[in-house]
Amino acid sequence: MYHYQYLYDFTTQLFEKIGCSKEDATVVAELLVGAELRNIPSHGFLRIPDYIKMWEAGRIKTNPNISVVRETLSTVVIDADSCFGMIAAKKAMNLAIEKAKTVGTCWIAIKNSTHFGIAGYYAMMALEHDMIGIAMTNANPLVAPTFSIDKMLGTNPFAVAIPTQNQPPFVADFATTPIARGKLDLMGKKGLKAPLGFVQDKDGNPSTNPDILKQGGAILPLGGDYEHGSHKGYCMGAIVDIFSSVFSGANFGPFVPPQVPYLAVKAESTGEGLGHFLGAMQIDAFQDADVFKSQMDNWITTFRNSKPAEGQEKVLIPGDPERESEISKKRDGIVLLPSLEEDIKQIATKYGLEFKA
Amino acid sequence: MYHYQYLYDFTTQLFEKIGCSKEDATVVAELLVGAELRNIPSHGFLRIPDYIKMWEAGRIKTNPNISVVRETLSTVVIDADSCFGMIAAKKAMNLAIEKAKTVGTCWIAIKNSTHFGIAGYYAMMALEHDMIGIAMTNANPLVAPTFSIDKMLGTNPFAVAIPTQNQPPFVADFATTPIARGKLDLMGKKGLKAPLGFVQDKDGNPSTNPDILKQGGAILPLGGDYEHGSHKGYCMGAIVDIFSSVFSGANFGPFVPPQVPYLAVKAESTGEGLGHFLGAMQIDAFQDADVFKSQMDNWITTFRNSKPAEGQEKVLIPGDPERESEISKKRDGIVLLPSLEEDIKQIATKYGLEFKA
Repeated sequence: MYHYQYLYDFTTQLFEKIGCSKEDATVVAELLVGAELRNIPSHGFLRIPDYIKMWEAGRIKTNPNISVVRETLSTVVIDADSCFGMIAAKKAMNLAIEKAKTVGTCWIAIKNSTHFGIAGYYAMMALEHDMIGIAMTNANPLVAPTFSIDKMLGTNPFAVAIPTQNQPPFVADFATTPIARGKLDLMGKKGLKAPLGFVQDKDGNPSTNPDILKQGGAILPLGGDYEHGSHKGYCMGAIVDIFSSVFSGANFGPFVPPQVPYLAVKAESTGEGLGHFLGAMQIDAFQDADVFKSQMDNWITTFRNSKPAEGQEKVLIPGDPERESEISKKRDGIVLLPSLEEDIKQIATKYGLEFKA
Repeated sequence: MYHYQYLYDFTTQLFEKIGCSKEDATVVAELLVGAELRNIPSHGFLRIPDYIKMWEAGRIKTNPNISVVRETLSTVVIDADSCFGMIAAKKAMNLAIEKAKTVGTCWIAIKNSTHFGIAGYYAMMALEHDMIGIAMTNANPLVAPTFSIDKMLGTNPFAVAIPTQNQPPFVADFATTPIARGKLDLMGKKGLKAPLGFVQDKDGNPSTNPDILKQGGAILPLGGDYEHGSHKGYCMGAIVDIFSSVFSGANFGPFVPPQVPYLAVKAESTGEGLGHFLGAMQIDAFQDADVFKSQMDNWITTFRNSKPAEGQEKVLIPGDPERESEISKKRDGIVLLPSLEEDIKQIATKYGLEFKA
């Protein structure tokens, strides 16, 4: 069991050890510890060994030259120069917020980037400015389009955060697939079967084997199969991919570089690195912020008070589970898997640090 | 069998008869015939009797005063003054395109509107300007959030059109549910069962009865159930609802006024009419348009050439089925259901027109 502040300080120190500035290291720490707090462990400490090895392999820079390569009043394109994705994305979101103050909205496409952690973090940055925040990213190709057997898209998450008055904010942050890769892996380790509609085998047949990706299978888009609307999940994943890559000049779909050290960089490329797309929308550009936020309270109360189905305790608002997790984990501490603790201890020793429960 | 030009001329004349200007009547005709051509008959001639009766009941104005109520460099809010939704939405999309030429992007929220037809039409308006178009709308509440039994959201469609060089454009236009209401009705009329994951009964139990909505049931969000990610479909539907209503000041979720004459206007209201949200994004604000469009050709070719699953002929690109339908129906004609032909004939007679195959 770890106090989140301990994990935050440790992560900051570790990333300083590999050459990040103090400021950049704290951004990496915020994202990784934030994912643990919000109960998205697939984007938390689990990533540290991968991040460190990617840096050791020269695939991530700790002294990047992040630069604006194109700009209009309401748009920016940024070259992340192979930095840890969160460093470019946080800078970009701050820029989007500043520009949206003048012109109403701002939209930023980022190329030449790497894994940026949880999309919801950037979307939520807009809230305190009375803005809606939007964040999306493309990712390692694992998902087959409807009717295909090739892995062409990532689980391509999409996040939208919307400010409120007295209610907690509306924060949607979801992969455009029924399930994330990390949860499939966990099912496999536990010897569980995956429900139908999560994955298919190498020939495109429905499968319940959570390890099927290792045998040429693929994750399905949200919807599962064509009959249940998987072409709509495919559309969503495709839109996230195109906005993240074709706007910015990053690699698209199957050409997105793997964000794990054990998969080599691909021979063929259609752009530079991985891509993200972010947006900030000033509420006041559409509606008095107080009117909007009090109506959002009304929206949330109305939906929260809708009648639960038999056997269900309550109806949730997007962001509820993550916020409740953040409260309890800040209070009770964060548990890491023993195998992960071991990995982190080894990395700590290697870089002259200590890591202990 | 009808030639699309005949249907277009007939619709234009009919809507002129009830007081629309020639220009406004042609917009209604474009949307209704466009839906027929693109094989979305639920938004085509089927709507004419509803539209006319809604106007007869004084719930739609044919001489509206559509006005801008708020504006920044990259945003506009429009009051549609209870017009036929497509008239306000088309005007708004043209304005979005004009403003995006100067500032890079423009986003328009519309209140006090009514059913606007197929969302994809407005998104596609951006293509010839080398822009991405986005359109969404809220709608009659028929969909229960995950874990709920109350009908809180519409099937809330989301459309994105992306320009290309030589390939046909990417046009995604989809409801945020596994199925649209119209297709459920058709299953019921044919005596078919609905697949599991489309609807639930009044207590929230899975159902295969396509007529269950008449017995207190609800449509499920995309994903079907929680295990298969219906909370993600619920998030999408909620985002479309909030962008369409809370930005503009229209009614949200369960308060959206019914767009059919046989359902009364609700006693309780949280805003004015129905809402839409539209956007135009200039490609050149992010990337040289030629570079972007040729990369989109590359994207489309890559995805189209991905390997089909066993038993599947080909992998589709969003927009393919609708475009193919448009080509064949322009050539071969449009078939209307005999019962619908009868309804249209009666309306034609009432307004001094003739309607014949």
